Amino acid sequence: MAHFSLLSPNSVLISRASFNLNTGKEQWLGHFVMKIKPMQLKVSSDLRARARVDGYANWKATEIPHQWYNLMVDLPIKPPPPLNPRTLQPIKPEDLSPLFPDELIKQEVSNERFIDIPEEVVDIYRLWRPTPLIRARRLEKLLNTPARIYYKYEGVSPAGSHKPNTAVPQVWYNVKQGVKKVVTETGAGQWGSALAFACSLFDLDCEVWQVRVSYDQKPYRKLMMQTWGAKVYPSPSDVTESGRQILRSDPSSPGSLGIAISEAVEVAMTNANTKYCLGSVLNHVLLHQTVIGEECIKQMEIFGDTPDVIIGCTGGGSNFGGLCFPFIREKLSGKMDPVIRAVEPEACPSLTKGIYAYDYGDTAGMTPLMKMHTLGHDFIPDPIHAGGLRYHGMAPLISHICELGLIEAVAIPQTECFEGAIKFARSEGLIAAPEPTHAIAATIREALHCRETGEAKVILMAMCGHGHFDLPSYDKYLQGNLVDLPFAGAAIQSSLAKIPQVAS
Amino acid sequence: MAHFSLLSPNSVLISRASFNLNTGKEQWLGHFVMKIKPMQLKVSSDLRARARVDGYANWKATEIPHQWYNLMVDLPIKPPPPLNPRTLQPIKPEDLSPLFPDELIKQEVSNERFIDIPEEVVDIYRLWRPTPLIRARRLEKLLNTPARIYYKYEGVSPAGSHKPNTAVPQVWYNVKQGVKKVVTETGAGQWGSALAFACSLFDLDCEVWQVRVSYDQKPYRKLMMQTWGAKVYPSPSDVTESGRQILRSDPSSPGSLGIAISEAVEVAMTNANTKYCLGSVLNHVLLHQTVIGEECIKQMEIFGDTPDVIIGCTGGGSNFGGLCFPFIREKLSGKMDPVIRAVEPEACPSLTKGIYAYDYGDTAGMTPLMKMHTLGHDFIPDPIHAGGLRYHGMAPLISHICELGLIEAVAIPQTECFEGAIKFARSEGLIAAPEPTHAIAATIREALHCRETGEAKVILMAMCGHGHFDLPSYDKYLQGNLVDLPFAGAAIQSSLAKIPQVAS
Repeated sequence: MAHFSLLSPNSVLISRASFNLNTGKEQWLGHFVMKIKPMQLKVSSDLRARARVDGYANWKATEIPHQWYNLMVDLPIKPPPPLNPRTLQPIKPEDLSPLFPDELIKQEVSNERFIDIPEEVVDIYRLWRPTPLIRARRLEKLLNTPARIYYKYEGVSPAGSHKPNTAVPQVWYNVKQGVKKVVTETGAGQWGSALAFACSLFDLDCEVWQVRVSYDQKPYRKLMMQTWGAKVYPSPSDVTESGRQILRSDPSSPGSLGIAISEAVEVAMTNANTKYCLGSVLNHVLLHQTVIGEECIKQMEIFGDTPDVIIGCTGGGSNFGGLCFPFIREKLSGKMDPVIRAVEPEACPSLTKGIYAYDYGDTAGMTPLMKMHTLGHDFIPDPIHAGGLRYHGMAPLISHICELGLIEAVAIPQTECFEGAIKFARSEGLIAAPEPTHAIAATIREALHCRETGEAKVILMAMCGHGHFDLPSYDKYLQGNLVDLPFAGAAIQSSLAKIPQVAS
Repeated sequence: MAHFSLLSPNSVLISRASFNLNTGKEQWLGHFVMKIKPMQLKVSSDLRARARVDGYANWKATEIPHQWYNLMVDLPIKPPPPLNPRTLQPIKPEDLSPLFPDELIKQEVSNERFIDIPEEVVDIYRLWRPTPLIRARRLEKLLNTPARIYYKYEGVSPAGSHKPNTAVPQVWYNVKQGVKKVVTETGAGQWGSALAFACSLFDLDCEVWQVRVSYDQKPYRKLMMQTWGAKVYPSPSDVTESGRQILRSDPSSPGSLGIAISEAVEVAMTNANTKYCLGSVLNHVLLHQTVIGEECIKQMEIFGDTPDVIIGCTGGGSNFGGLCFPFIREKLSGKMDPVIRAVEPEACPSLTKGIYAYDYGDTAGMTPLMKMHTLGHDFIPDPIHAGGLRYHGMAPLISHICELGLIEAVAIPQTECFEGAIKFARSEGLIAAPEPTHAIAATIREALHCRETGEAKVILMAMCGHGHFDLPSYDKYLQGNLVDLPFAGAAIQSSLAKIPQVAS
């Protein structure tokens, strides 16, 4: 008789014994170790066997990715470069040096397909990664749909969203370069609290300009940043020239991400040893977020499903890009062919109602010109509850793949989003941030469509953060006081007219 | 040559082949499946091998327990029984029928060492379990201590604390028995939101009486319960006789858990198809929480450490009991010998300043008499920020093992707790609820003691929930406005004098 015990992932201990009929006992004969070919442990049937516990797919069996994925390398057509706003020539890496540490600038323009994640960063990722991939069986049942709905949940991070995936490496690279302070902007506060969290772990000074409407509407996010030791200003503020300029023309300005970016960038440009961090839009930020999609590909494999539709909300595009870029790689290589759908608020519809043109990333016009879907750099959207989706532009890389037809976009009004979020909370048990309620509403649309057609599509949804600090918005919806705002057509036309003219 | 592939946790596929020296190829000879004894897969060296990823201990490799552990069975001396308050005789199971479904009453008095967890409950546990066990390396470094600190983090549940571990089975057993509505009390709101969460998953009506001081201080918890569809009343309320009676004598009463329990129990007793749920104190509640400790024993094994000191906060005792009961089993069987320390607020010190006597569980005197450490059933503690630790009594089972000397207790003032919590947030990245800040403060005391003595003790701490809804308390502390309250000696003496006289 031989007994087998796993010693390590690639060796087995084999113990041999003979059974003595007289004594009823086993006599030990000896043992030897046999190597298993690693290859054989990697075939997916085996992965699934290991990953199934009591017949349930166990997403926790996934390992944390050790590399970020750079979609740029695999694109058949490269996106247009950012331009220096004075010379209108492609910007050079050194143009970005006042704002970012060298390693992040390298990543911004990298030609490497995969970039190693520093071990110290992986070590912190372990606090919350791998994040759950959950089959939404109770929501499916509620909707009576043949669709199979999965959601990738990033709300388990200490700051409650996907944002720490990039905050931690950004802080790490800044610390490595000897930077003493980082500054940033934040809308609803998810990015600001992620950066405050990351800075507290590395003992780096952190200052945050928070869009005033969110600063007032969501005071708990500010308290969270302060608990982690950050300094928070409402934006527009009177501590920067950009802020003072806005306040002069509109003393009660609700603020916008574009304004807050101007303020933080101004502080970084005018202070030595201070750099700027951005929570979305740029290539290196989306790069860091690809840990979401890389994990998710493996987890979908464990479930034994391949997505037919991938849905995520888009503000600047980092959560959406983080989930879908690795899937686009698989799509480009012919391994799968999912429809990939970006969902934005009707009140700030850059992909669906903006134009694809060179524009500034901020309101004051301090950033490089980027070719992107934009509503105009001085557009200030209505103060909707999904504060994180109030950016006038879109990540250039997301805009580009939208132009290439690799993704599609849709806009949804906020009441439909909250209606979906209540259904989600009462079936799946999780209270979503207002941003991912857009993904939830679009997922419900798709699942109800499947009910009509009878298609058993596999829908994968990005659930990028919890709504613990947005409960007053839920309260407003439940009280019937949340309304859809009229389409800001005239305001958009007016701001589009101010986009700089660049021959392309 | 033979190749091995794992087919399932207890079978291996063995493929045999011969290597042809002429062709350089392997020739396939056949394969067979060999069973592995499950026992052998459980040896810890094997578990550790599977559980280590890239050299890191991976707590996620732990399986979710499928049985709850009943400490009662293993105690050398059994605790005194609860008494019928009229007859002063031990209560009979049928006395509890108006309040609880039959299965929970059976669990309350069970003589089984292990009780199976229903599959539907395990399925919901999968949303957040196994919960993380994390080595607090950054806190250790900050404290410059030779101690190794681990914390078991229950804040990843949808309601943000350990409470759903019992809310889900309680709701499940009520639904199975055809109950239409459940009612309960809540302090800071952790228990109420856990019950609201569980009820929303099973479509059961839920009403919650929340202690008024917390209802006012922590409005987000109320909004969370409402988002999940529960109805919430501030307690004392005017919808129950118990509430009206309190309001008559003190219209601005801040409320207490004892009062809120009276209100909920009254509603359950006077309405058919309505049952009562309790979030702590009773045996079946502590039983359900043992999933924490069972998981933790396996996870500590993965880390290769055995706790020397186990620390948890105690209000009613469910988080503390949930973590430590399985460890007490190991202690009683001689496998380890940790010091087990309960930490309570100085403002509500039932274990350290109360007396061990028969007393009511609620203020109005509607519950059975339980032998426990109590400050008197009409003691109303000051409105401290750890609202969940404001119960006048202690779980009878925790009180009993404290009398037996199996655990010890300590009381800590709230400023020391918040000071520790800020250290924890800025090193480990997690913002604790005010309740576990007591465990954090006691852990820091122990770790600093180790720094003095040079002992490399292994400290295991219960981190039972996040403080997302308690940020105004952090703000108050950071602004220097949080103070320690004077010891309520006179109030305690006065309420102790009103404990019913029972010859024991």
